[in-house]
Amino acid sequence: MKIFRYIDKQGESQTAILKPDNTMELASGCVPGPVTSTGKEIFADDIVSYLPPVDPPNIIALGLNYSEHVKEFDRTNSPDTPVIFMKSTSSLNCHGGKIVRPGVAPAFIDFEAELGIVIGKKASNIDPEAAHKYIYGYTCVNDITARDCQKHDVQWVRAKSFDTFCPVGPCIETDLNPVGLEIRSTLNGYVMQESNTTDMIFKPDEIVSFISRCMTLLPGTLILTGTPPGVGFARDPKVLLQPGDCIRIEISGIGTLENFVV
Amino acid sequence: MKIFRYIDKQGESQTAILKPDNTMELASGCVPGPVTSTGKEIFADDIVSYLPPVDPPNIIALGLNYSEHVKEFDRTNSPDTPVIFMKSTSSLNCHGGKIVRPGVAPAFIDFEAELGIVIGKKASNIDPEAAHKYIYGYTCVNDITARDCQKHDVQWVRAKSFDTFCPVGPCIETDLNPVGLEIRSTLNGYVMQESNTTDMIFKPDEIVSFISRCMTLLPGTLILTGTPPGVGFARDPKVLLQPGDCIRIEISGIGTLENFVV
Repeated sequence: MKIFRYIDKQGESQTAILKPDNTMELASGCVPGPVTSTGKEIFADDIVSYLPPVDPPNIIALGLNYSEHVKEFDRTNSPDTPVIFMKSTSSLNCHGGKIVRPGVAPAFIDFEAELGIVIGKKASNIDPEAAHKYIYGYTCVNDITARDCQKHDVQWVRAKSFDTFCPVGPCIETDLNPVGLEIRSTLNGYVMQESNTTDMIFKPDEIVSFISRCMTLLPGTLILTGTPPGVGFARDPKVLLQPGDCIRIEISGIGTLENFVV
Repeated sequence: MKIFRYIDKQGESQTAILKPDNTMELASGCVPGPVTSTGKEIFADDIVSYLPPVDPPNIIALGLNYSEHVKEFDRTNSPDTPVIFMKSTSSLNCHGGKIVRPGVAPAFIDFEAELGIVIGKKASNIDPEAAHKYIYGYTCVNDITARDCQKHDVQWVRAKSFDTFCPVGPCIETDLNPVGLEIRSTLNGYVMQESNTTDMIFKPDEIVSFISRCMTLLPGTLILTGTPPGVGFARDPKVLLQPGDCIRIEISGIGTLENFVV
């Protein structure tokens, strides 16, 4: 089931379901809890703007989880355990939201297509085999990064936590096998990243298990699973986000997350 | 005013005020909003357990913010801008709470005494001169760190985000000049760190301003301002936290945050 959230004409936030025939129905319930259709159809012009499909208590992210991206990032060896960092929840953005180049670091803004895992219930010390029981669903995420800050700070948190730097959506798909999904980013229609989640070094079940042994994953936690090769900073010549750019993250079985840069 | 939170005998969470004469009064209101005394006195045996004095939406932390700590951390130069990382909100702990050595990384657990800033209202692009208007108060924090994970990962988030690794409290002091405060950690009664917030490289107002230019600081955000020299890992011989240890963080004008290791 594809669940999304939006602001309606009355300014209220709503939860809705995108059905296989592309019709939309208003839903009751709240992500990451049970969500069911009310049967009331909604239409495109009912949606004033999208919301992030979840309000995560924490955004945990993996670095260097596709081996070809490890190489383009000048690393010779893939990590032996997942490399964990965080993005501030204040960086959350939605499908259709503007990506704002920050005043203090406008120059080297890059995109990263990522599969996002949404945690459904409190998870602590979970085995990989049981991880799927704690996963609510999957979404598309663009892990926007200020490359100059990332290089300067060594710690990645600041570079990845500027306001608007975490577009998420358009929906959460709750019934999906996360292995074997095509993942792609396109910039103004040109393909930048094109890979498959099969190429992840650590798979979603392993990731959830690993992180749950470090910290209790609270319901709604969003986990970014790393980006495939082709990011702008590693290209020759470099491709950095400019005002007016349209950046799309597409994952098969989920949908397309589209954002414009200002 | 010193504000703290606790669980009462009915299992309810309560907000209270510690008065200058050390009597305690039940309060109305919620941190980081206005809190006022109800006039009803409470007593030590009304407090079943403390709570973290704030529920932060994000925990932002500074590394390497005392020059003598930079040296003991094998760095030759102090950073030219604040080094930012995050701790997961799932790592929150309270005054009197147990610090649990994690199963996956039990060996190199260290303490770090830090002054904590609690943000009072939404802050974005704030000048240092205006930062005090956005600060609700100050508290003591122990930035517990798994040194082996910190060294292994390079990114510090995992090492600092294990459950129970962020003791905060015992209270928030809302009327305090954060410069010139004595800051001390003692382990089983022995002084480990002893410094003064005057020795910070970046002062609280500069820190709030700097971070607010990167990300919107939401009300209740907790900012850790870095630790002075004397951490266990840098001592010879190393002093690491063992089951049964009592670790205290004391900051003049705030109070003493005490935790035991299990």
